[in-house]
Amino acid sequence: MEPRISLITLGVKDLERSLRFYRDGLGFPTTWKPEKGVIFFQTNGVCLALYPYEHLAKDVSDSFLVERARFSGITLAHNVRLKEDVDRVLQQAAAAGAEIEKPAQDAFWGGYSGYFSDPDGYLWEVAWGAFEIRDDGSLIIP
Amino acid sequence: MEPRISLITLGVKDLERSLRFYRDGLGFPTTWKPEKGVIFFQTNGVCLALYPYEHLAKDVSDSFLVERARFSGITLAHNVRLKEDVDRVLQQAAAAGAEIEKPAQDAFWGGYSGYFSDPDGYLWEVAWGAFEIRDDGSLIIP
Repeated sequence: MEPRISLITLGVKDLERSLRFYRDGLGFPTTWKPEKGVIFFQTNGVCLALYPYEHLAKDVSDSFLVERARFSGITLAHNVRLKEDVDRVLQQAAAAGAEIEKPAQDAFWGGYSGYFSDPDGYLWEVAWGAFEIRDDGSLIIP
Repeated sequence: MEPRISLITLGVKDLERSLRFYRDGLGFPTTWKPEKGVIFFQTNGVCLALYPYEHLAKDVSDSFLVERARFSGITLAHNVRLKEDVDRVLQQAAAAGAEIEKPAQDAFWGGYSGYFSDPDGYLWEVAWGAFEIRDDGSLIIP
């Protein structure tokens, strides 16, 4: 197995609402067309996909067709090159309809970060510090 | 905001158990040292991180410190270059202690895939088909 995550799929309640948030609000490029039931975004390194929640649960097996809890246990992070980008990205997300769950603040690990949640409550950390970022956007882990 | 996911963090119950699963079982490279409370894996494009569940919930805010449901709403996918790699990777995961939630099978979208869950129940799809894979492992979205 290569050490690689190819795709992250979020099970969403309303595909159109999530499309507006990620494509129009955050500016993620997509090849999506109305006849497609799944939406893929061409992000760097890993693709983000959106799929109706019930369909995604059932794609694993019927036993996963249950309500989500407030916390999924998973956070996605968007790391930025400049400290001031944290505030800028959080503002962009808020303008797109995100909930700011944690305003940007100095973090105990020496960086600066905040969290927003997307229309389904999926959590994104916007963070600066601790990692070097390559030109292609990928992180060099410390 | 660049269209980019930098990091995926899984909140885990037992860091040592998860370390054994991902480092020893799946073979993901890490720079982790025993004095570090968070484990980063150098995967291609996006980093995978493991962090104690309660710490991760509280890093967002205390209101997220709740039990997870059986389904997080999120799936990670590992896409492979050859159809027979799906069975090979699922076997490797099972040998590392994963639960096979869906045995490899032909998928309605024309590919071949199955799901395993990691020691905390996080779901990974192992899939072949539908996507072209670049030399660096990233997908070209259809």
